[in-house]
Amino acid sequence: MQVGSWLTRVREQRPLVHNITNLVVMNVAANALLSLGASPVMAHAHEEVADMAAIAGALALNLGTLDPYVVTSMDLASEAANRRGVPVVLDPVGAGATPYRTGAALRLLETRNIQVLRGNQGEIGVITGAGGEVAGVDARGAGTDLAGRMVEFARQHHLVVAATGERDLVTDGETMYELQNGHPWEAAITGSGCSLTAVIAAFVAVSDQSRRGIAEATVAAITCFNVAAELAAEGASGPGSFQVKLLDALHTLTPSDVDARARIRRG
Amino acid sequence: MQVGSWLTRVREQRPLVHNITNLVVMNVAANALLSLGASPVMAHAHEEVADMAAIAGALALNLGTLDPYVVTSMDLASEAANRRGVPVVLDPVGAGATPYRTGAALRLLETRNIQVLRGNQGEIGVITGAGGEVAGVDARGAGTDLAGRMVEFARQHHLVVAATGERDLVTDGETMYELQNGHPWEAAITGSGCSLTAVIAAFVAVSDQSRRGIAEATVAAITCFNVAAELAAEGASGPGSFQVKLLDALHTLTPSDVDARARIRRG
Amino acid sequence: MQVGSWLTRVREQRPLVHNITNLVVMNVAANALLSLGASPVMAHAHEEVADMAAIAGALALNLGTLDPYVVTSMDLASEAANRRGVPVVLDPVGAGATPYRTGAALRLLETRNIQVLRGNQGEIGVITGAGGEVAGVDARGAGTDLAGRMVEFARQHHLVVAATGERDLVTDGETMYELQNGHPWEAAITGSGCSLTAVIAAFVAVSDQSRRGIAEATVAAITCFNVAAELAAEGASGPGSFQVKLLDALHTLTPSDVDARARIRRG
Repeated sequence: MQVGSWLTRVREQRPLVHNITNLVVMNVAANALLSLGASPVMAHAHEEVADMAAIAGALALNLGTLDPYVVTSMDLASEAANRRGVPVVLDPVGAGATPYRTGAALRLLETRNIQVLRGNQGEIGVITGAGGEVAGVDARGAGTDLAGRMVEFARQHHLVVAATGERDLVTDGETMYELQNGHPWEAAITGSGCSLTAVIAAFVAVSDQSRRGIAEATVAAITCFNVAAELAAEGASGPGSFQVKLLDALHTLTPSDVDARARIRRG
Repeated sequence: MQVGSWLTRVREQRPLVHNITNLVVMNVAANALLSLGASPVMAHAHEEVADMAAIAGALALNLGTLDPYVVTSMDLASEAANRRGVPVVLDPVGAGATPYRTGAALRLLETRNIQVLRGNQGEIGVITGAGGEVAGVDARGAGTDLAGRMVEFARQHHLVVAATGERDLVTDGETMYELQNGHPWEAAITGSGCSLTAVIAAFVAVSDQSRRGIAEATVAAITCFNVAAELAAEGASGPGSFQVKLLDALHTLTPSDVDARARIRRG
Repeated sequence: MQVGSWLTRVREQRPLVHNITNLVVMNVAANALLSLGASPVMAHAHEEVADMAAIAGALALNLGTLDPYVVTSMDLASEAANRRGVPVVLDPVGAGATPYRTGAALRLLETRNIQVLRGNQGEIGVITGAGGEVAGVDARGAGTDLAGRMVEFARQHHLVVAATGERDLVTDGETMYELQNGHPWEAAITGSGCSLTAVIAAFVAVSDQSRRGIAEATVAAITCFNVAAELAAEGASGPGSFQVKLLDALHTLTPSDVDARARIRRG
């Protein structure tokens, strides 16, 4: 699977990604999208989310600092996105940490067509029923047979499931991909997972919208992001400089960098 | 026009700038003001915005992530600012992208005395009636005769209008300034426009509050910010490091740096 | 007093710090905690704050961009924290600037058990009754006999009071500590005080929860943070690069760095 060409496609089409995301990472996610070559917009007012989602290439929902107002924003935006065929990516940040978070994630999955569900292994473990432990927003355990439960969940809900961690698992219910790029410092900065979710949305926006195409877009997005992280870590001396260099690397990353470093196993 | 001396005045007086701004750029705008030598405060509670605006040197309003609560905050704060003679700068982020944004911007312009309206060329095109296209928060077209409509709008509304882009246009309805400083990477980071709006507010705070004085403050602010961007870009290797160096440059910028590099044409 | 060993304890226990903090610094505070080795979570929904506070090692409250919704979030979270013995740290950002801010801070102090009150000298001057002047969120004066009023306030309210500035004062009502580490650039970036509050919460989380233990945790946290700032400033060329290097330094800081540089006077 050649993933570098996906990067070119994102830069050429510069998709508009509508984010309803958390207050901690808004700036980071917007910058990650801009550095990569996509066009971010953040909007949450009930008066405009449907309008904004309708003109977007993809909608990224992130539960990191959810509250009832924002949950309604997500309901309205995803309804409009579903009506217009705009793909929706959901990041259930902190699912498992409180019943409110778990409930909000499950309700979106039940009432809307979500195209990609991406979380850390704890969150995905909780949501797919594999078990899993989440302390605050950190995964502390992923349950047994995470991969198996992901496949089942993907089939039942007709979506792509991605669980990121030291190794990343992605499945559309048929194929399981195991991705091995990345750097430990991604866990030492806030917003790397959330930025990745936004980046996945940008890649899904330029896919053919088939389940297989969306899975490949997700694999390509994670691989591009993680290769950028590897390149960023080479020159960094801690999480602060890593963060800066990650934005630089997302901007300077070439398709051949990605293809040369990609470590994707197809199960 | 000597613009470097404006920088000295801002640093000497250290004006308090009350920002009601968007969730994406709050941190960036606060840091830009601090680096420059001004004093930022962010406050949006209905219970305190009038008190805060009344003690500020200027009020900066930014519609980037508006919602009904924040729109009311802006109404209350700008009413207090008008009553106390505190100048108000408005950044209509995303006007043209959704009716809600366009409507909120126009209502503030109709019901309050705004001293400076600053946006990208798409937003200003939409608001002044020149036409213009806005996708999310990116300008994709500015309409025909933007400069002419800006002059007309400035006269009708008794304010200064600034449309920033590759070249920046500023007018008080009499003089049209064309500014040619800046760097393309400003468009590759989030919040450069929003930070600029906050910086304009700091400069307007130390002006004599005449229309002409406010126009000159706006020209000086844009030029200082864009010269800092040029200096920052010299040592940067991507949008991440550019952002860091921009804050450094706003701090180390001297009046003579600005005067040596300023490219201002008066039409 | 050996403060370096506190750093080891934080990294070993990786306490979960629940932050209800302001919109400007959420990202910075989360990154400071991650760089240091603690685990941040931000959550403000009324539906979940009690659940989140109950599983946290400490709760950090920051009034920087308070509004009625968030004030209720703080009421609910601190009530749960008090019930479960989770220590609470309060940062009364901007107390003295508007009656709303001062009132919100005082009400929390009256109705909840707060373990640490940390602010700049202006804010602490206002709250303890020493007097003090606050413009926006900047201290412009601390009143007379700040130290004396801090001691009295600490005794009356059974808490630790910390007033940070060029020199930092910390007291539990018995001992007064005067801390002399730090760097002037801490005042040139937004969120250094707020990050420090979050870091204090992480240290208090690993203390024995006695008043004396909490005072020592506070002294250790401020010293570690300020030593990191000193190290960061060495390689920085302005507030932008200082901010980046501060996160790097919080990550690479060793207990012996801290002990070698600590300047703590016990009054």
